[in-house]
Amino acid sequence: MAWIDVTYHVRAHAADIESVAAALALEQSVEVPADVVRDRWVRDHVMGRVDRIDPIGADSFSVSIRLALATTGLDAAQTINMLFGNSSLHEHVDLVDASFPPEFGAGYPGPRHGIDGIRRSSGVQGRPLTCAALKPQGLPVERLAALAHTFALGGIDVIKDDHGLADQSYSPFAARVAACRRALERAERETGRPCLYAPSLVGSPRALEKQARIARDEGAQMVLVAPALIGLPAFQELVSEVLDVPVLAHPSYAGAARVAPAFLLGTLFRLLGADAVIFPNAGGRFAYDAHTCAAIADRCRRPWSGRRPVLPVPAGGMSVERAAQIVHSYGDDTMLLVGGSLLSAGEEHLPARTRAFVEAVAGASASRSARAVAPAA
Amino acid sequence: MAWIDVTYHVRAHAADIESVAAALALEQSVEVPADVVRDRWVRDHVMGRVDRIDPIGADSFSVSIRLALATTGLDAAQTINMLFGNSSLHEHVDLVDASFPPEFGAGYPGPRHGIDGIRRSSGVQGRPLTCAALKPQGLPVERLAALAHTFALGGIDVIKDDHGLADQSYSPFAARVAACRRALERAERETGRPCLYAPSLVGSPRALEKQARIARDEGAQMVLVAPALIGLPAFQELVSEVLDVPVLAHPSYAGAARVAPAFLLGTLFRLLGADAVIFPNAGGRFAYDAHTCAAIADRCRRPWSGRRPVLPVPAGGMSVERAAQIVHSYGDDTMLLVGGSLLSAGEEHLPARTRAFVEAVAGASASRSARAVAPAA
Repeated sequence: MAWIDVTYHVRAHAADIESVAAALALEQSVEVPADVVRDRWVRDHVMGRVDRIDPIGADSFSVSIRLALATTGLDAAQTINMLFGNSSLHEHVDLVDASFPPEFGAGYPGPRHGIDGIRRSSGVQGRPLTCAALKPQGLPVERLAALAHTFALGGIDVIKDDHGLADQSYSPFAARVAACRRALERAERETGRPCLYAPSLVGSPRALEKQARIARDEGAQMVLVAPALIGLPAFQELVSEVLDVPVLAHPSYAGAARVAPAFLLGTLFRLLGADAVIFPNAGGRFAYDAHTCAAIADRCRRPWSGRRPVLPVPAGGMSVERAAQIVHSYGDDTMLLVGGSLLSAGEEHLPARTRAFVEAVAGASASRSARAVAPAA
Repeated sequence: MAWIDVTYHVRAHAADIESVAAALALEQSVEVPADVVRDRWVRDHVMGRVDRIDPIGADSFSVSIRLALATTGLDAAQTINMLFGNSSLHEHVDLVDASFPPEFGAGYPGPRHGIDGIRRSSGVQGRPLTCAALKPQGLPVERLAALAHTFALGGIDVIKDDHGLADQSYSPFAARVAACRRALERAERETGRPCLYAPSLVGSPRALEKQARIARDEGAQMVLVAPALIGLPAFQELVSEVLDVPVLAHPSYAGAARVAPAFLLGTLFRLLGADAVIFPNAGGRFAYDAHTCAAIADRCRRPWSGRRPVLPVPAGGMSVERAAQIVHSYGDDTMLLVGGSLLSAGEEHLPARTRAFVEAVAGASASRSARAVAPAA
């Protein structure tokens, strides 16, 4: 008998928490009152059960519930259904974490490339990677390709489409991917080192497959995908059945406010096959605090039943000036994603500003290593 | 130039609201500061703009933003990306509503069957429909089929799988659908009237297609699908490319707390092709209030650019005793979904309790009609 240990945060009065927790265990399993479950086998092997309840604040509790693995059918969609299907509608409940039994593992090997794979294809060792975004949307294909070329000459390691770039009339997917790849091949001949391109795949499952084929045919070495936007089950299938390159996961539409970001972006995205995970860094224009960001990075990289570690990609309000501090916080196995901050310098200053960003990251990494090997004062 | 009018609720101080609204318009379009957008065409045709700001409470505003239709590429995933991609991560922003220009319509005809189609296949006119759920999960196929048979003999119009039923070892999808359909065919021979069966489709896009084929081959007249769980883009493609029967939409995993339920369940589910929409009714075990429920029902049925009206399906804590009141609230073009309340009576009382529920709904509808034609006192 295998069980998934699920943690929820529940807002309830102390006098009610036991019955609220029991109702939660039923809601996420048999979905009927306990006395309706007259079948002994269902009671023993299917019905969810409360494992423990710990107070974490005034009228606030951490509730551990055990859900039978068998209820998931080992399917990704059904697993999410069991973890947080109906209870996502309950305003007093947050899904915080889940730990899966070994029997769950075989179907979910996780990332196929991970940090090592991205380092191999980019040729970057011993320092954080740098990433820049092609934007704003609305520019024609040639302007986006020229931007990619400038970033690559400036030393950026990975260039991604802005996640708003889809298959719009002003920069159609196929033409854009072809033009950007050609620009980056030209840059590679000039610099002698590769710059990976991650076009943004957006659409229904069939559109995603078509875009993935175009990206592969054009030689794109990565892809950008937003798992919460296309749907976690569609993401899992795209990764396991269609894609062969590393996947950079974007948090678009992942703001389901009652799933803990560290679990959704860190654990679930990695479980379903992301190789690098973008998240809104503390201090930028989004609201995650430093503790949440550290938890996401930890879940990206910590040992997990043999699943490859993946690159945390702090983003959002990144600037050349903050680069060193971010390297010191996250360490070398990180990719720094810079966006509008490079562009705001204006076209004529873009090459120099790009180079300054790249050098700030490399410099911070080197000083960090030097400190690490220096004898204690 | 076509624009989508989007409404957000934003929490901000009055002194900041103009800059917060301007940042929101940029975030959901070009995703760079306005001064970075130097291209005139992009400024005029792609960049989002604030249309109006209305105070709705202390430090709380309704913000109308116009987003260029061109940014969506007319794709469902990309439309959601533009409506609430990055801003879903902003804790101070709720997505409340959007109104689409006529140019958007062609690709999104909405429900293919709607209320009329479901009434035709069920043969029910002039009163609300009734719906019961097969549960708890864990029961073997034969017990679920026997339950379906009992419900049908009691006069239920539509029987759906519990949304927790997937493709688990204890009641595999193909065997379950076959057995339930056979049980309902037998009931139809006994009662002389059809009882529609809606098996639950859950999984990745390819699994959904496979399950849809099995359901069709077995003659299931409806299907149950949770759009937020499988992903809205996958849902849209499943409906438009694969399914031919009416779709009963389930709200599982739809608790993204910062998308207004009326917009997500009412507008978006209908837009993407749901024919009937289950929602947690006020006073049940979920938290939607009466106002939200009325808004969902209104969006299901109100005229909308020629798109078929769809059945609102209030559920959650439904009971025989509450049936009449619910009919009076929602009217005849409604389907009442009853779950654990029938089962809690125990197996020996189930047939009578089912019949009581069916009669309560029919009786309430008749008394409502009588009142409607009675002369005013």
